[in-house]
Amino acid sequence: MLCHAREQTGLPIVTELMSPYDIDTFVDKVDCIQVGARNMQNFDLLKEVGRINKPVILKRGLSATISEWLMAAEYIAAGGNHNIIFFFFGIRTFETAYRNVMDVTCVPVLKRETHLPVIIDPSHAGGKAWMVPALARAAIAAGADGLLVEMHPNPCEAWCDADQALNPQEFKDLIGSLRGIAEVIGRTL
Amino acid sequence: MLCHAREQTGLPIVTELMSPYDIDTFVDKVDCIQVGARNMQNFDLLKEVGRINKPVILKRGLSATISEWLMAAEYIAAGGNHNIIFFFFGIRTFETAYRNVMDVTCVPVLKRETHLPVIIDPSHAGGKAWMVPALARAAIAAGADGLLVEMHPNPCEAWCDADQALNPQEFKDLIGSLRGIAEVIGRTL
Amino acid sequence: MLCHAREQTGLPIVTELMSPYDIDTFVDKVDCIQVGARNMQNFDLLKEVGRINKPVILKRGLSATISEWLMAAEYIAAGGNHNIIFFFFGIRTFETAYRNVMDVTCVPVLKRETHLPVIIDPSHAGGKAWMVPALARAAIAAGADGLLVEMHPNPCEAWCDADQALNPQEFKDLIGSLRGIAEVIGRTL
Amino acid sequence: MLCHAREQTGLPIVTELMSPYDIDTFVDKVDCIQVGARNMQNFDLLKEVGRINKPVILKRGLSATISEWLMAAEYIAAGGNHNIIFFFFGIRTFETAYRNVMDVTCVPVLKRETHLPVIIDPSHAGGKAWMVPALARAAIAAGADGLLVEMHPNPCEAWCDADQALNPQEFKDLIGSLRGIAEVIGRTL
Repeated sequence: MLCHAREQTGLPIVTELMSPYDIDTFVDKVDCIQVGARNMQNFDLLKEVGRINKPVILKRGLSATISEWLMAAEYIAAGGNHNIIFFFFGIRTFETAYRNVMDVTCVPVLKRETHLPVIIDPSHAGGKAWMVPALARAAIAAGADGLLVEMHPNPCEAWCDADQALNPQEFKDLIGSLRGIAEVIGRTL
Repeated sequence: MLCHAREQTGLPIVTELMSPYDIDTFVDKVDCIQVGARNMQNFDLLKEVGRINKPVILKRGLSATISEWLMAAEYIAAGGNHNIIFFFFGIRTFETAYRNVMDVTCVPVLKRETHLPVIIDPSHAGGKAWMVPALARAAIAAGADGLLVEMHPNPCEAWCDADQALNPQEFKDLIGSLRGIAEVIGRTL
Repeated sequence: MLCHAREQTGLPIVTELMSPYDIDTFVDKVDCIQVGARNMQNFDLLKEVGRINKPVILKRGLSATISEWLMAAEYIAAGGNHNIIFFFFGIRTFETAYRNVMDVTCVPVLKRETHLPVIIDPSHAGGKAWMVPALARAAIAAGADGLLVEMHPNPCEAWCDADQALNPQEFKDLIGSLRGIAEVIGRTL
Repeated sequence: MLCHAREQTGLPIVTELMSPYDIDTFVDKVDCIQVGARNMQNFDLLKEVGRINKPVILKRGLSATISEWLMAAEYIAAGGNHNIIFFFFGIRTFETAYRNVMDVTCVPVLKRETHLPVIIDPSHAGGKAWMVPALARAAIAAGADGLLVEMHPNPCEAWCDADQALNPQEFKDLIGSLRGIAEVIGRTL
């Protein structure tokens, strides 16, 4: 179904794999493989995605230290696959006012320690649509290379994560300000 | 000495008070009173600064929830002083790669719950000068109304917090990008 | 009123002070002074209680490290008052199933670093009466020198903290098992 | 090799599995299967161990809430295997004086919510041999059904985790006091 969607739309496919045994089935069909936050230290999986020739999105575990995250990336890189993308939606803390704390400080640290891209997910970090624009802007301003922002033509009807989805107009407005911030720091959107 | 400095330079004075008994001595001489992070729940102090007619900077405790912070502000506001400024340098977490986690998500939350200004201190949040520009930009992009950024003509000679101080050129470059980001989100620096 | 209660009952009085300015008023009337968790780093207060000749109960801040707690005790000891009692009801974490995490590991650490007594409050740590016996036993087994356990003749009618109060029979049963554990580790209750 | 060891000694074997694909290879040869802390939310693995007829030790993730831990157990139980043992060595917090915080409060909570046994590992929780006896006693006093305590004939020569291993005499002394505590709370060791 995903392959069919790709053919129809031309969009690349990212698929999360949860077991090293699924790699052979998927590697030729998808454009990018994602290792989920709960599998960040699934070392068998990390080693296997280190042997393939596709980009790997490595999500930060909810309570993983930067050091543990970098070492997880090393497991992938050690196999020869340096095509690694860091991805996070925040860390678990004592704060209950929002789902996670979007820890932007890790962006300059990752940029100093590696030359790899970093994607941030402000939608899952905050969990509420009204928080997302501020978080998305902060993420780009901190140096993130990409964002995952949830949008829905009509958020009230979304089957999943309705609370955190922007509507098309909010999304468009956000993109405008993100483009401006990117330019200020010498980048393009 | 601070009063003398004010006369000479015209700069306003912010002074941290740690006890309600010091208020009478200081209130007429300073322009703004600061309640430190460790005193965020010193209720006697909060009540007293609620009775004066000067702005109060209320720092977030290192592990205070947003809710506790708002309730501390209520203690001040209940006395009649609504001139409250929220200030924070981050929260304490399990991460040891930087001093604190600069929790920008609290900015949209505070903006939604109150109409009060928020100042962020990226210098103490990160603790390293090379982290500061990214954090400062994220803070402004998230909607902060002000920043506290440490600068020193020669950071190597700073008596205090040398690691986190920018030099004048770094500071000037940072101000340039902050001005750009502020404009993008419809504000001025 | 507290003095009257002491006369009538012979019970010693512990009073929490929140400001160094209250010490003169209280020092001769009470048997022990308590520094609350929110004042653990109120250094003016610590210095003042360091100059008196009464035992001081020093509560651990909700997110204070052991090291910060020991250094707070140093402020008191530096003034000449070595009559310090460590007290805690737990630390703040991500867990929401109970009020605080009763961190018993600090007991052997404090015992190794100091020769001072440690009191644990399982009632406020857990927040539910049914958790209290297990926590109280763990506290004594870990080497705590004392406990604060809330009991009420009829918890349903308690004006405060009703959820965490034991009834007299539960309390009596608990004391029995605590006495047994104390004996096992060579102590007496 | 493990099978050979079992034959020679009569000791049962516990083996940690990290992938659902390894189950068929191991299930008939081992006495108990362990799901590691990093795999606590590896749902494919949980579902598979739910279909076998061997006891499963389910370790708590370092930052997993009690609720997440119980839900992970549900994945196993849903498959028909109710032979589940909870196991933990503590949670990740801001405290750096010891490896993890041995959160004993989860014992009464698990006992209230389930009828399943709980094993605690004070050796990995503390990380230092001198902390282990206090933690082990607290664990039993809190109601734990079992302990994992590391012992080595000569800890200085241990290949792994030397710092936290008790020597035989320390172990023997500890067992004596644990037996006493168990009796006090109506259990036997």
